Order: sequence, then structure tokens, then C-alpha cells
Amino acid sequence: MFIVMRKGYTEKEMADILDRLTQMGFTGHTSKGVERTVIGVVGRTYPELKDTLEMWPGVEEVVPISKPYKLSSREFQPHDTRIKVGDVTIGGEEVVVMAGPCAVETEEQLLQTARAVKAAGANILRGGAYKPSTSPYSFRGLGEEGLKLLDKARQETGLPIITEVMTPQDVELVARYADILQVGARNMQNFILLEEVGKTQKPAMLKRGMSATIQEWLLSAEYILAQGNRQLMLCERGIRTFETYTRNTMDVSAIPIIEKLSHLPIIADPSHGTGKWYLVAPLALAAVAAGADGLMIEVHPSPDNALKDGAQSLTFENFERLMAQVGMVATSVAPIYRGEGLKMN
Amino acid sequence: MFIVMRKGYTEKEMADILDRLTQMGFTGHTSKGVERTVIGVVGRTYPELKDTLEMWPGVEEVVPISKPYKLSSREFQPHDTRIKVGDVTIGGEEVVVMAGPCAVETEEQLLQTARAVKAAGANILRGGAYKPSTSPYSFRGLGEEGLKLLDKARQETGLPIITEVMTPQDVELVARYADILQVGARNMQNFILLEEVGKTQKPAMLKRGMSATIQEWLLSAEYILAQGNRQLMLCERGIRTFETYTRNTMDVSAIPIIEKLSHLPIIADPSHGTGKWYLVAPLALAAVAAGADGLMIEVHPSPDNALKDGAQSLTFENFERLMAQVGMVATSVAPIYRGEGLKMN
Amino acid sequence: MFIVMRKGYTEKEMADILDRLTQMGFTGHTSKGVERTVIGVVGRTYPELKDTLEMWPGVEEVVPISKPYKLSSREFQPHDTRIKVGDVTIGGEEVVVMAGPCAVETEEQLLQTARAVKAAGANILRGGAYKPSTSPYSFRGLGEEGLKLLDKARQETGLPIITEVMTPQDVELVARYADILQVGARNMQNFILLEEVGKTQKPAMLKRGMSATIQEWLLSAEYILAQGNRQLMLCERGIRTFETYTRNTMDVSAIPIIEKLSHLPIIADPSHGTGKWYLVAPLALAAVAAGADGLMIEVHPSPDNALKDGAQSLTFENFERLMAQVGMVATSVAPIYRGEGLKMN
Amino acid sequence: MFIVMRKGYTEKEMADILDRLTQMGFTGHTSKGVERTVIGVVGRTYPELKDTLEMWPGVEEVVPISKPYKLSSREFQPHDTRIKVGDVTIGGEEVVVMAGPCAVETEEQLLQTARAVKAAGANILRGGAYKPSTSPYSFRGLGEEGLKLLDKARQETGLPIITEVMTPQDVELVARYADILQVGARNMQNFILLEEVGKTQKPAMLKRGMSATIQEWLLSAEYILAQGNRQLMLCERGIRTFETYTRNTMDVSAIPIIEKLSHLPIIADPSHGTGKWYLVAPLALAAVAAGADGLMIEVHPSPDNALKDGAQSLTFENFERLMAQVGMVATSVAPIYRGEGLKMN
Repeated sequence: MFIVMRKGYTEKEMADILDRLTQMGFTGHTSKGVERTVIGVVGRTYPELKDTLEMWPGVEEVVPISKPYKLSSREFQPHDTRIKVGDVTIGGEEVVVMAGPCAVETEEQLLQTARAVKAAGANILRGGAYKPSTSPYSFRGLGEEGLKLLDKARQETGLPIITEVMTPQDVELVARYADILQVGARNMQNFILLEEVGKTQKPAMLKRGMSATIQEWLLSAEYILAQGNRQLMLCERGIRTFETYTRNTMDVSAIPIIEKLSHLPIIADPSHGTGKWYLVAPLALAAVAAGADGLMIEVHPSPDNALKDGAQSLTFENFERLMAQVGMVATSVAPIYRGEGLKMN
Repeated sequence: MFIVMRKGYTEKEMADILDRLTQMGFTGHTSKGVERTVIGVVGRTYPELKDTLEMWPGVEEVVPISKPYKLSSREFQPHDTRIKVGDVTIGGEEVVVMAGPCAVETEEQLLQTARAVKAAGANILRGGAYKPSTSPYSFRGLGEEGLKLLDKARQETGLPIITEVMTPQDVELVARYADILQVGARNMQNFILLEEVGKTQKPAMLKRGMSATIQEWLLSAEYILAQGNRQLMLCERGIRTFETYTRNTMDVSAIPIIEKLSHLPIIADPSHGTGKWYLVAPLALAAVAAGADGLMIEVHPSPDNALKDGAQSLTFENFERLMAQVGMVATSVAPIYRGEGLKMN
Repeated sequence: MFIVMRKGYTEKEMADILDRLTQMGFTGHTSKGVERTVIGVVGRTYPELKDTLEMWPGVEEVVPISKPYKLSSREFQPHDTRIKVGDVTIGGEEVVVMAGPCAVETEEQLLQTARAVKAAGANILRGGAYKPSTSPYSFRGLGEEGLKLLDKARQETGLPIITEVMTPQDVELVARYADILQVGARNMQNFILLEEVGKTQKPAMLKRGMSATIQEWLLSAEYILAQGNRQLMLCERGIRTFETYTRNTMDVSAIPIIEKLSHLPIIADPSHGTGKWYLVAPLALAAVAAGADGLMIEVHPSPDNALKDGAQSLTFENFERLMAQVGMVATSVAPIYRGEGLKMN
Repeated sequence: MFIVMRKGYTEKEMADILDRLTQMGFTGHTSKGVERTVIGVVGRTYPELKDTLEMWPGVEEVVPISKPYKLSSREFQPHDTRIKVGDVTIGGEEVVVMAGPCAVETEEQLLQTARAVKAAGANILRGGAYKPSTSPYSFRGLGEEGLKLLDKARQETGLPIITEVMTPQDVELVARYADILQVGARNMQNFILLEEVGKTQKPAMLKRGMSATIQEWLLSAEYILAQGNRQLMLCERGIRTFETYTRNTMDVSAIPIIEKLSHLPIIADPSHGTGKWYLVAPLALAAVAAGADGLMIEVHPSPDNALKDGAQSLTFENFERLMAQVGMVATSVAPIYRGEGLKMN
């Protein structure tokens, strides 16, 4: 951490700062430049220290130079995290596809979809039993009944299940049914929920908040990792911008950035990322070409009758076509990301 | 709700749409323009219907024309909501000031601050016992111990207490101590928490999420109101933009917009809204001049030693000065907002 | 265009509105719903009409239903625009690659780069003679001297030249040297420049403004097209968001959206889109996978000595590797976008 | 400027960096912390140096510590800039009000408005003869004819004129008629225009670009100042965010920030800042309460017949009422900003 001194600071201010740093257990190294004098703060600094130091007389600005996240960083763990769920490995050689309806609606809808996505080559079944909704007057999921249907679909198809948990009280219940616990974008900073998910030791997927920076996202991941649950993957699902044509702007660059900064697998969700079914395929392919470890895709037997998010759901036929396309792009980029082709550093 | 037909739609598509609308209990009124044909959908429409209808063949776009929120709207309740907390009325003639430390740290820190803000004329004491923090390695509040200190400060000063509740399990506990329950920006779409707060019938304050539109904010308010809790106020605390000089960009226009769209009182938080103590006074005055019903201000006996958010906290002296300034501006705008001066429609 | 009436409007207000519409040459079709009454405005409406109508007593909101751009739309021209520049066709079967230095610095730097990008398979040489710079104290290009060097490089390598024109006075001069005129992001709404470029009948490329919606971008394209210059392509180069890790957030979804809404070719610029050289390859591949017609890539013989934008420039070696990767991805997606694989409607 | 070294850098990398710095005329001061080694770069650094240094092997990140703008900074000129235009002083004790129609439409419209705003107490007449428009099919102003009408209105009312210049070729012409040259938001980074305006030595007003950071805005001001024109004021007119209820989000905090960072006067434009006439008064008052030196307000004899921006224009009656309100708020805050009330440092 560096303290940049205000122009025209006094000798007393400088002396006081060095004193206070020493009292707090830090060492201050002064360095005078042409325009500015700077103090390097040596010791185990922490993010809040910036706010504190910026209040001190004579200080212009404080510049942190350590990253505030640790356990999620490549520096902490250079090798990729790989997560085994049943026969599937997330973060390994293959692009993993999680597909299914936005919300579990009926047994028939779910089973039909589960069979279709399995036939098309999906690896994991997605489906929400608890659905966040901006309006209290909208469909909000079947609850435990939905979890039971997911269990049934797993038994029939053998596909592992990923499903969302929305509140700390439900973590235990949802964890009894799910193979992967999903934390949604709106809960990315629901810190108590993150810790409960961290305590389960279940594989988990943390979606990026709609207006979260990459650093904040990694800090939220830290909440789960710090509880000892290291089976964590991240999911980019679009951020909020001024553009109104799409529901969100999917930040494809987040994929290689996470790859560079973190060892955690990175999944892309072009369904939420765009909000329009006809943009799902191009963005899914883009994500794979950018190095994503997996995709999360909404599929519905009859999107125009869906209770939720029909507009961004693929039909069985479109999903099957997408799987073939994903295969082609994944093959074409395999030597780049899995081999020695792309050297980022 | 209006269906805008695609150019070149077929007669069969049109007939199918009208049929399906009838089956769903709606009536469709067709209207052919020079460029476009449009179907007016008559009946009790709901937000999700847009997504569904946009999937139907022949449809270009669906345009909703009802607002999705009800209970929070001026149309539902034309007169202002006023909330009585002890002797204080929020949403009435006076600008209410809630002040205190970001986080409760120690008995001495809290009591000293409570006395100082009371002496300067604040109406309500703020202080966090549970603190959300982007990093798991930061200070996160004293918990129930903090609530007890708040109770003590209330007993000594007579100031009612506002404090944040972060998770559904804690609502009952926090409600035992607090006069006003605060839901923070990160929890604006923690829908289960909103419903628990709605069930308490305690006065509550809902902060705007960092990237929430005004419509989403009012929809979140709906979650609380729909549980029967009508003692609700809103709080603008800054939104996320590309500007990095400030922590957030305080959206002052949200104040008159809420005033126009909703009967709920609107509070402004220039401390979080700017993140820098020297911007707090100008933005506090701006909020009052724009018609805010109240202010929420962070005050600390020694901001440069604060455990949290010192950079945006005022000293006792600066707070006292601000109170005098707020008084002057509030007096100057009283005839505008409280009388007949500003006619918005 | 639709007029949504305020609840509780009076009969007189309705009669007045219908009268005024008639006077303006429109017809108004009234339709009463359960919650709202709506008037369909039939006739040749225009964007500004919305503002005007929203001022009229009794009106709640006006909803436009025609798109404000015409010449750039798929509805106006269903088939793709293809632009021939020398032997290269932009908007056709091949992914076109424009590569070269951000700024022309010296003859040696430019010629060396031109040879290297040609050898690696690039189709067009890019290089700025006039450089916009946020600071007046920065390098701003060699001016006409730079154009002459570009001409020399063209003669030697046979590569057509794309270069930026920054101001209406320079259009004629730059058009004498350039094969494609580039309008930069900062000038997307420099309407007088757009018209001058439109008058030249030279192939042109219009970059998306840093905070431009897709609709505004297409409206800016309209300025060029309306002058009779139909040899226009668009270029996505990243938009401004709250994320600070990247210089901009490249909006990959803009590629399939433009493809759907417009017949104009769409190029992606991952160099400006990310601002970091190690993100260029993943985003270039993503753009191709999303269906881009071309790429624009910054290449420099010695990026760490570049006068401008070294941080986002590739070395010759990295560019050569990228070209091979682009080839693989382009091949894998060719059947999708060029054949019948992806049906968007 | 500071170079933060990558963890695990080699001794050779460090030696090379120090060497190269020396060759470039800088001195490097090394400082080893617990987590990071840092090199302080001493000498006359410049913004682009960051990009260059970040390319060097062993470098993790480069942190600039000088501000890139000079002439516009408080450090360069501690006292406020005051601009005299006729009898009016901008940046002095009084809040200056510039009012008039968005666009000059007819002699009658302009003269009527000029008389009305003068009678209500406005100090300067605004009116556009050249109008930027997102669509080429919209009204774009009367051109020189409009300038002549403005001149006529000035002669009749004695009010100085502010009007926009959109392109370098027009600077001389517009400067012959205008008392203050306005550079619009879309041209904030039209650097050639800025320089032409700088050469005129006429008072000028630079609007903030729709997605410009405060630092970029001050850098654009630098272009004008560097040509020797020091009679410059800035104008906040709203930035683009995700909120769609307003046309832009007026960043009220920009007012005290400019006050702190720069000596240039700061004007607020709540008409463009909100896009809705009923929000103009609250935001105008907010701007004054935040310390603005002036306001720019759109007024039209018949807003619902305006050719441009009627929705954000005030009627004569509403403008007169606003002037009284502005007077009250300005009086109440005068001791705060003009006296010793608000100490920001």
C-alpha cells in the first residue's frame, strides 16, 4: 500500500504519519519524487486500511497494491481447480453443458426436457425449484416439490442436478437434493448465504452480480472458499449497462480474465446473459471460443408457454443444433486453451 | 399490453394469436397502421405475459403499458405515507435526519456519537450491528452485542434506532431492538428477507440496489407492502456508473421521481452515495433541495480511526455545521414542496 | 406510435388530442382496456413526435413502434451488404482481418509491420495518421506524412489501407490516400463528419461510440447512408461499463444483433475492446464465433516501445499465432453462419 | 508513477527495468515490501508511460500518481476563475441563469422567449442555431439564420448569447455572433473543435460527455486552455446509466468535485440532465444547493409545439416560478459556499 502525500504537506504531518504507522505495526518508506512524495507501507495491510489512511492529515490518496482476494487467486493456487460431479469433470479438458428449464414447472415438463438435453449431449441438468423474481406477483417456483422432481429426473437420466438456493435456511434442504448448489446473481453479496454454502462442502456455482466488478466477484468467492469448500466454480451471466436491446450485456472478456486471475472454473450463461433465445447460440459459441469451461443453457419443451423466461429458452430442436455447433467450436479451440497455444503471460 | 406484429406476418399467425388470447381470457383489438399492425391485449395482464407473447409466431415486440407495481404507486394511494416513530414523523413537514456511526464499535464510540448527533438536532440514531462487507476478512459488526448497545443509546438519548437486518433468520431478533428495520442495497432483491420484514409490521427502510432501476426498486418495495407492512420508506444511496472518483453516483433525480410515482417517503444517504466525507454536505443539501423527506448521515467521533467507512464519516463538528446548513436549505424549500409551489403535473 | 392515456383523463382531453392529431395529418384510433385507454397514432410518425405528444394534457406516455432508422435496416434491405476493397470482400464468406499499428510512427515501423501482417495472412493494413487522444499532451499522429507512409506500405505489400479521419476538413485529404475511411468511437455522433464521409462514396467503417446504444449507432450509420454512400461497415470496439479491469467491455452480443437488425457488415476490434494484449486473442476468437465479418487488430514490432496503445498491441509472433487460431475457429463456424445452421428467426 | 513488480520476478528483469528507466531519463527507487516489490519512477512522467511500462517483463502493474491535467487544476491555479460577459460575472458571488429555447425556431418564438426569461431574471440567453440530432431525419437548426435571430434578441433585450458550435469550420462564424461558445456533450472529445474554440479567446462552455469521467472532462478542458483561452466554464448535463426513466442521470456530485479539483466555474443543465420538465425544478434547486455557479434551463413559449426537446422545456410561467425558488435556495446557501461555511479540506 502506498500513501501519496498532498503537495505542500508539512514536516509534522509526515512525522505523525510515520509514527502512527509504526504504532500500528507497519514500516513506512519515504520516497520523494519530482512532483510527489510517497510513503510505501510495509506490513500485512488489509483493504480497509486505505479508507483509514486517507483520512490522515497530509495524505492525498492511498494506493493498494496487493489484491484483496487470496484463496481464489492464481497466486495462491497456480493449477486449475477441477470439480468432479458424478462422471463429469468441470474445469478439465471438456466443455461441460448444463441445460434444462429455467424453472421446474411440472413432472412432464421436467422429465421431457431432461431426456431431450441428455439425448443432445448435455452433462448436467439445470432447473429452478426456488426462483427469484423481481415482482412478488410472479411465479416463484415449486419449492421442495420441485427438488423432488429434479431428483426423479436425475434417477431416470443419470444427469447430476444443479439448482439454486436462495436463503441460508434452505441450504441444508437444497443440498440434500442437489449435486451442485447455485448462488444467483442477486445473491452474490448475500454474505450469510455464501458462508452457509461454504459450510456444506458441496460443489457450488457462484454467479456474477449484475453490477459486480470482477474483484468483488472474487471476494464473494472468498466467502465460500474460506469456509473450506474449495469445489467452487464461477458463472458469468451478463452485467447491467445502458444498452436496452439485451436484458444484460454478457461480458465475454470475464472468461479469460477469470482464467488469468483465478484457478476456479468459469461457466457462461448466455440465456440470462442476453435474454433473447436467438442470441443464445452466438454467445454460447463466443464463450467457448473465449475459453469457457462450460455453458449453462435454458431449454423448454414449449418456450412460448413457459412460466418463466420463455423468451430466452431454446426448443429441443434448437438446443440439439447448438450442441453440434458447440462441439465444432470446442474442438477447434481445444489445442489453444488446453494445449500450449495461448500463452497469456 | 400491446402486441406489435412483424412486417409481413401471415393471416394465419394473426388468427392464431387472437385465438390463443381468447383461450387465455383476454380480448385482442387489432389496429392497422401505415407501417405496423398492432393488437391491443385487453384483460388483467401481468409482467411475464410479455415474455410469453414475444415467443409467438408473427410477433415483433410486446409493449406493456401498465406499471408492474401497485401498492407502492401514487395511483393506488394518492396521499403521502407518513410514518410515526416515537415523536418523529417521516414523510411529513420536517426533513428527518438519521445520524450515527456506520458500525457500532464500542459503547463509548456509540454513546458519544449518539449524544453529539442528538445535540446537533438529529432525530434518529443509525448504527450497524450487522455489517455487509465485500471481503470476508473485514470487520462485520458486533451482532447482538451491538443491538444491546443501540438499545442503551436509545435509553440514554431518547433517539429511536434504525439498524440493518441482513438475513431472514435475524429479522425477529433485530426487530426486538430496532425502531426501524433497514434493508441494505445488497439485499434489495433478497426477496425472502423482504417478506420477513414485511411480516413484522415494524417501520422499515429499503435502500436502492446499486444497479437497480427505479421500477425494480418499487417492485422490491411491493414485497414488503404485500405482507401488510405499509410503514415503509425508501432510501437512495447511489448507483454504480463508470465514474470512479466517487464510490457511487448519487442519483438525486430519484428523489422527485419517487415523489411522483409513489406515496412512500424518500430518504437520501449522501455518505454511501459519495463515499467521501467532503462531498457529504453538498449532496445532503442537494437532496433536501430536491425534496427529500430525510437524510441518513454517517458520523464518527474519530473518522480516521473508524473500523468501517471512515472516509465517508463526518466529525461531530462537521455534522453540527451540516445540521445548520440543512436547516437553512430546508426552510428555503419548505414552501416549494410542502405548499403549492411545485406542481409536477 | 401509441398514446397511453393517464388514468382519469377527461373527455375534453381525449377530444382535444384526437383533434390535434387530425390537424397534424394523423388518425387516432382509440382503444379502451381494463386499466388504460390507448390511442393508436396512424400516419408517418417520426421520433420527435414522442416528445411533443407527451406534453399534451391527459397523456401518460407515448410508445413508438417503428424503428427510427431505415436505410441500415434489414427491413429496407434484406440481403447482406458486401463491400469490395481491392481483392477483398467484406461481408462475404471470409472473415477479413485488418491489422497494423495503432499509430503510424516511422517508415520502418510501418513497413516492417505491414510485411509481417501480410505474411501472417491479414487482408487489410490499419494505421492511424491522425490519432485522437484524451490528453493534449500526448502523441497525436504524423498527419499527412503518416498517410504517405501508408501509401508506401500499400504499394509495397498490396494491402488496402484503412485509416481514421477525425474532422470534416480532412475528409478529402484522407480519402485521397485511404481505401477505407474510419470514423472513430469519439466521433460516432460528429454528424457533420459523418455527412462528409457519406459524400465521398469511399468504403467507410463506423465505430460504435463508447456509450452508444445499438439504435443510436444505426442512426449514426444513417447519416452516412443517407448521403448515398452505401459501402459502410460497422465496428464494435467496447462500451463503457463500471468494470475497471478492462479499458472497455467488448459487447460481443452486438455482433449477432447487428446481423439481425442490419444488412451492414460487422467488424470487431478486440484491441480497443479490451485494452490488454493478453485478452485480444480470446476476444478475437469469441467475435468470430459470434459471427463477425472481420477483425481489427493492433500489431507492433515492439509493443513495449510503442508511442500509443502498446499495452493492447500484439507482437508479430503473437499475431501470427492468432491468425492460425482465427482460421480454425472461422472454419468451424463457417457452416453455421454462412450456411443454414443458425436460424435466428 | 510506481511500478509494481510481479511476484517471482527475476533479478535480471529488475536490472533491465532500472537500466531502461535510466536511459529514458528517469530514476528508479526500489522498495521491497512483504508481498510486493515496487519501483518509484522519479522524473517528468506522462500518462502514456503507464502503457509502455506495463509491457516490460517482470512488471505486474503501473500506478500513476500525478494527475494528467494541469491548467484546469486547483494546484495550477488556486483561485476561482471568473468570467465577465457583459455585466454578468460567471464564477462569482451570484448564481447565473442561462435560459431560452433548445433550438431557435422563429423570430417570434425566440424574441418572446428572450423577453420572458429576461423579465423573470435570467442573465444570459441560450438558443441553438446548429443542433446535433441522433437522427438525420430530425430538425437540425436554422444555421446562420438562427445566429442572426439570436443577435436580434440580444439587441432587444441586452442579454448576452450562448450558442453551440458543432464543427471546426463554423467556429469563426459562430464566434462572430456568440458571447459564449458552447461545446456540446457529443463533441467533448472532438479535439480539433476544442482547439479551434481555444484559439478564439471567446468565453466558452464545455459540456461533459455522456460517458466521460471527470478526469477525461478536465483533460478535454485542457485542450481549450492550452490554446491560451482561459475563459472556460464546465457544464454537467447528465451521464448515461442503466436507468431508463430519465434521459440521463444528472451527476450532482460532479459540482462539488469540480469545485474541489478545478478553478473553472461549473454550470448545471437539469433540462438535458433529466429530459423531463417536471424534474427540472428539483434538480435545478439541487444543483444550486450543491454549489453550482450557474444553471442552463430550456424555456419555450409552447413546449408541446416545440420542434426539439419540448418534453424538457419549461413554460414561461414555470420558469418564472423556478427563478423565485432558485433565488430562495441560492440565498440560503450563499453563506455556505461563498463564505467560510463549507470547508472541504
